[in-house]
Amino acid sequence: MPYIELESHLPGITGLLEYRKDSAQPIRDLTQYLLRGPSTLSEAERELIATVVSYGNECTFCTTAHTAAADLLIGDHETAKQVKQNIETAPVSEKMKALLTIASLTRKGGKNVSAEIIERAKAAGATDIEIHDTVLIAALFCLYNRYVDGLATALPAEVGYYDTLAERIVNHGYTRLPQGYDHLKK
Amino acid sequence: MPYIELESHLPGITGLLEYRKDSAQPIRDLTQYLLRGPSTLSEAERELIATVVSYGNECTFCTTAHTAAADLLIGDHETAKQVKQNIETAPVSEKMKALLTIASLTRKGGKNVSAEIIERAKAAGATDIEIHDTVLIAALFCLYNRYVDGLATALPAEVGYYDTLAERIVNHGYTRLPQGYDHLKK
Repeated sequence: MPYIELESHLPGITGLLEYRKDSAQPIRDLTQYLLRGPSTLSEAERELIATVVSYGNECTFCTTAHTAAADLLIGDHETAKQVKQNIETAPVSEKMKALLTIASLTRKGGKNVSAEIIERAKAAGATDIEIHDTVLIAALFCLYNRYVDGLATALPAEVGYYDTLAERIVNHGYTRLPQGYDHLKK
Repeated sequence: MPYIELESHLPGITGLLEYRKDSAQPIRDLTQYLLRGPSTLSEAERELIATVVSYGNECTFCTTAHTAAADLLIGDHETAKQVKQNIETAPVSEKMKALLTIASLTRKGGKNVSAEIIERAKAAGATDIEIHDTVLIAALFCLYNRYVDGLATALPAEVGYYDTLAERIVNHGYTRLPQGYDHLKK
């Protein structure tokens, strides 16, 4: 039962973004830019950053949603699963191992990000912008996870909800719901 | 020494917002809306929420900047100081004590916000929107604090920097620097 009155058919973040549309717009814009905008990190890699942070923060809605999005983009159910279990042994590049570790450290608190892990990322080919975006995506999901759980939003009741949501955010991004997706709002 | 190449005369968040203007814009917009937009919480009360979260996250730049902003809005140097030390004995209303506690719990992690503290806030007169905004402001400063410290941004060198910054964000808000503030960029 959410702590404030939200539309009961909109679980997790979706009810919050409808509740206060003026604050929702810049949150959507920032997410769209960081996760779907021009980048040398693939959309799948950016979804893995969102996943590892949400998982570390134990936010069920965000973890399940972004795992589903990463799975859809990557085309398997193994990569995100392994990244959540152990970054070092997961089937991702050396650069991504360093960036995912930076994201995990950012999640725990900004001061945890050490010069050593930054050096490792740079040695593996990470650019300043990739490091910047990794930290900011991690910070953004620290916002999302706290927003979703701090107000005790509901989990979806329907089987298959996350697959539908993943298909939407993979194919249509994080801006407002496009036409034809009204069933996610009803 | 920041982990990425930032303009050396721009400490804390200011260098990051210049580094990547496309991601900066929605962050500025969200902050402006939540901290300066229409609200039944005063600007001072919202700056106290930003202060208590930044202090809990041990982010020196953000804590000092928002303490200075709160001090300027309140007209004393005691309130913010006492809020950081002990919310329960600080000279703020019962409603603000509950909301600041919600902010502190959100900072630690969304799941820490209990039904009991929400009930206390509502009993003290807090509305759903005030509770929503408290959680979202706390979540936003969890983003800011991680962004600022995760990239190891510099602290300002000049004595009086924070007073100038506080004067700017109190009188001009969180949007782009207005004309006449070029000295903060040079």
